Amino acid sequence: MSAHGNGHTVHANGNDYIVPKPRAEWIVNRKKEAERTGDWNMSQMHFARKGLVTEEMSFVAHKEKLAPEFIRDEIAAGRMIIPANINHPELEPMAIGVGSLCKINANIGNSAITSNVDEELRKLHTAVHYGADTVMDLSTGGDIPMIREAILRHSPVPIGTVPLYEALSRVKKVEDLSIDLYLEVIEEQAQQGVDYFTIHAGVLIQYVPMVSKRITGIVSRGGAILAQWMTSHHKQNFLYENFDRITKLLAKYDVSYSLGDGLRPGCVADASDEAQFAELKTLGELTQQAWKDDVQVMIEGPGHVPMDKIKEQVDKEVELCHGAPFYVLGPLVTDIAPGYDHITSAIGAAMIGWHGAAMLCYVTPKEHLGLPNEKDVKDGIIAYKIAAHAADIARHRPGARDRDDAISHARYTFDWDKQFALSLDPDTARSMHDETLPDDYYKEAAFCSMCGPKFCSMNWSSKVDKYNEEVHGLKKNDLTQIVTEQMALRG
Amino acid sequence: MSAHGNGHTVHANGNDYIVPKPRAEWIVNRKKEAERTGDWNMSQMHFARKGLVTEEMSFVAHKEKLAPEFIRDEIAAGRMIIPANINHPELEPMAIGVGSLCKINANIGNSAITSNVDEELRKLHTAVHYGADTVMDLSTGGDIPMIREAILRHSPVPIGTVPLYEALSRVKKVEDLSIDLYLEVIEEQAQQGVDYFTIHAGVLIQYVPMVSKRITGIVSRGGAILAQWMTSHHKQNFLYENFDRITKLLAKYDVSYSLGDGLRPGCVADASDEAQFAELKTLGELTQQAWKDDVQVMIEGPGHVPMDKIKEQVDKEVELCHGAPFYVLGPLVTDIAPGYDHITSAIGAAMIGWHGAAMLCYVTPKEHLGLPNEKDVKDGIIAYKIAAHAADIARHRPGARDRDDAISHARYTFDWDKQFALSLDPDTARSMHDETLPDDYYKEAAFCSMCGPKFCSMNWSSKVDKYNEEVHGLKKNDLTQIVTEQMALRG
Repeated sequence: MSAHGNGHTVHANGNDYIVPKPRAEWIVNRKKEAERTGDWNMSQMHFARKGLVTEEMSFVAHKEKLAPEFIRDEIAAGRMIIPANINHPELEPMAIGVGSLCKINANIGNSAITSNVDEELRKLHTAVHYGADTVMDLSTGGDIPMIREAILRHSPVPIGTVPLYEALSRVKKVEDLSIDLYLEVIEEQAQQGVDYFTIHAGVLIQYVPMVSKRITGIVSRGGAILAQWMTSHHKQNFLYENFDRITKLLAKYDVSYSLGDGLRPGCVADASDEAQFAELKTLGELTQQAWKDDVQVMIEGPGHVPMDKIKEQVDKEVELCHGAPFYVLGPLVTDIAPGYDHITSAIGAAMIGWHGAAMLCYVTPKEHLGLPNEKDVKDGIIAYKIAAHAADIARHRPGARDRDDAISHARYTFDWDKQFALSLDPDTARSMHDETLPDDYYKEAAFCSMCGPKFCSMNWSSKVDKYNEEVHGLKKNDLTQIVTEQMALRG
Repeated sequence: MSAHGNGHTVHANGNDYIVPKPRAEWIVNRKKEAERTGDWNMSQMHFARKGLVTEEMSFVAHKEKLAPEFIRDEIAAGRMIIPANINHPELEPMAIGVGSLCKINANIGNSAITSNVDEELRKLHTAVHYGADTVMDLSTGGDIPMIREAILRHSPVPIGTVPLYEALSRVKKVEDLSIDLYLEVIEEQAQQGVDYFTIHAGVLIQYVPMVSKRITGIVSRGGAILAQWMTSHHKQNFLYENFDRITKLLAKYDVSYSLGDGLRPGCVADASDEAQFAELKTLGELTQQAWKDDVQVMIEGPGHVPMDKIKEQVDKEVELCHGAPFYVLGPLVTDIAPGYDHITSAIGAAMIGWHGAAMLCYVTPKEHLGLPNEKDVKDGIIAYKIAAHAADIARHRPGARDRDDAISHARYTFDWDKQFALSLDPDTARSMHDETLPDDYYKEAAFCSMCGPKFCSMNWSSKVDKYNEEVHGLKKNDLTQIVTEQMALRG
């Protein structure tokens, strides 16, 4: 492939097709400019702080229906990021921040036990199709760089990784990890085009004893690996000690930091404890350090948190991390439902999104039990689209409720086809309806099998509308405009 | 069958088995006492207000680990109910109120389009098996009394109905409904043993014009039927006008009121509007009227409510309805996910349970699309067990987190069998795990297919525990006691 063309041909599922490269020209021009000035800091924050609106910012402003200057100012202040590696021309830029729509991330990637590149590409496709805003490749087995290359070259959304996994795959044992190996790995991944790295630089050796009070200890893979490294060597976290070297590298490619929460709680009992908040404070210090080099930062959050402690999580993050976007896994609000943790966590995710989290990392039904397959990915995505959308509604974002109003109007007027088309998963909605009333005739019927014709409330209610109009002169709201707009948006 | 024995033989799925009748003797004695005194008010509230602790109250106190006197006082004050018709001896009494665990209800029942008695009994079994605390039979088609009789004679949980459905099934058109027919229907249902009735006595004719501003008008079947009746006849709601006659009848059998929210919102745009709160105020007045005759009352709530308006729903209900238990459908926090409304509504349900709702009425994935089948019932139940349990945790009910702590400990110690046994749906958890690692060997493996052995955080974390013990003298919490107790509880 050529990173300088406007697209490249790939082979997938037996068909050749072109992956568009919307950013190719922008990047070429940006590199030319750097050659002229000698300023090789490529981060969106760097440009924003110089007062520039990049093509990526304009693109995002258009998608979000926000002013380009607002996007620029939010990025300059660190409250928003556009993860956009200059070597990921296939990317359609998107923003993560409290000022824009609530986003969702899907984790894919194999393990040593199962999966291959075709399956991971199918998961990527499913994730993007159902609305993932970013995707993390968490592969830990097989040919990790090859799988990542395939994912990057097919992905219109930002790709994140945890570089520590590849580093560990290259050594025999945890103790052999070193900063030199780590820098080698992140440079290679940055060159490939990874848009953000999870880096657990806040797990410090002095925090390790704090987890002894916990039921589930350290549940972050990165956190547990680093704790093992530190306690074996009796040395401080090498990511913390070499943070500035990592930052310089990230600036060159505009890779964003996703500062990992290596000490996040792994069960509701462990939520909001000393270890978690000690690390969060360190992440806040590292945020300011990264911002000195204009490198973009978001902060990762837990995990497992009971409902009454969710708002506190956001408040603390905003306070300790100076408003950097909060990127949260779940949180699960109970531990007793393995097999259904897309639901236990969608509850927490919706709430934390309402309180101000910028991106929600999905949890699939397979969490705690095994590696998710394609169906698990889909189920996770749908649950998180629900959570993020519910958060946008509760935050009163302009226009957030339009699609709800349009589908509700279609429901009230028994326009079944429109109702399906406006739903998050049209095929599932249609097939559930058709389970009992498959005939096309029923697509205009003023009832469904739930109540039948004599007991349909909406059917009766429309007669009441006539009474309100004839007796009280009260006309029903006409929502034709909003429905038409929403139908156009959904194709 | 004989209502005076200790059980009766039923025939189901080709097998005879005995349905126990734990209340049979209690009821006989209570009736003897009434013959002596002439006081035929059989309601739990009547006994509570006389200072008596009934067998039902003791039973509930034992189950809830609360003092019998506390149960009695809560019932006397109207903050708790025990729905327990004196003709439902098969019932194992349970309580609904903010002072006890958060409960869930499952709706079953057929429509004119689909279902039969065997299928409804299977749904009842599934609902009770997975943990429904009460079940409503919402049948609107076929031989309604026969289906209800079968359900009642098999049910250890309280059964609720909406008597208006059977009344409507007996007439040609809505306009033919009358209070005489309605009283006939509720007397028959009360004699059969129905434990609570949804009665939409708060939908007043003067509130009907208020719905013209809505997108989805009236979505309660009972509400829409009554609105149609009132606007045709230009008369006030006959349930409101004859409320005291209904109350006297309910007192005789100890049927509890579930005052229906006929004007609940049917989409997020319609939430918390004038119509909804006007009706709620009337329900509060009717509550006090019912309490004059010591009849137990709970209040039904919506429906579709954005997250930022959920707390207000509980606060208003407590204020306007004098603390009567709040029994809420969902609420859904967005309208755009038909096919997944068990999830959209579990989010709202968990939150409203946390804020003080006493019982959550489930919503199945089939909502808005068709009549739920057995699998939909199961999916709805699991989502709502999650919601109610998360609410109990967030309310800090004593012991609510014990099961979470036990399963988390089993997770950390890689005791897969215990982890499955303690989960809400052991079969699903086990089969998801076994999808990739079926061999029995892996039931003690210190990893699963999600990360594999080299990347399992809990595996690494347990090594860190050794460091904490050896270097810092910090021992990990021993949870053996709590795990043993929880395993005993789950059998």
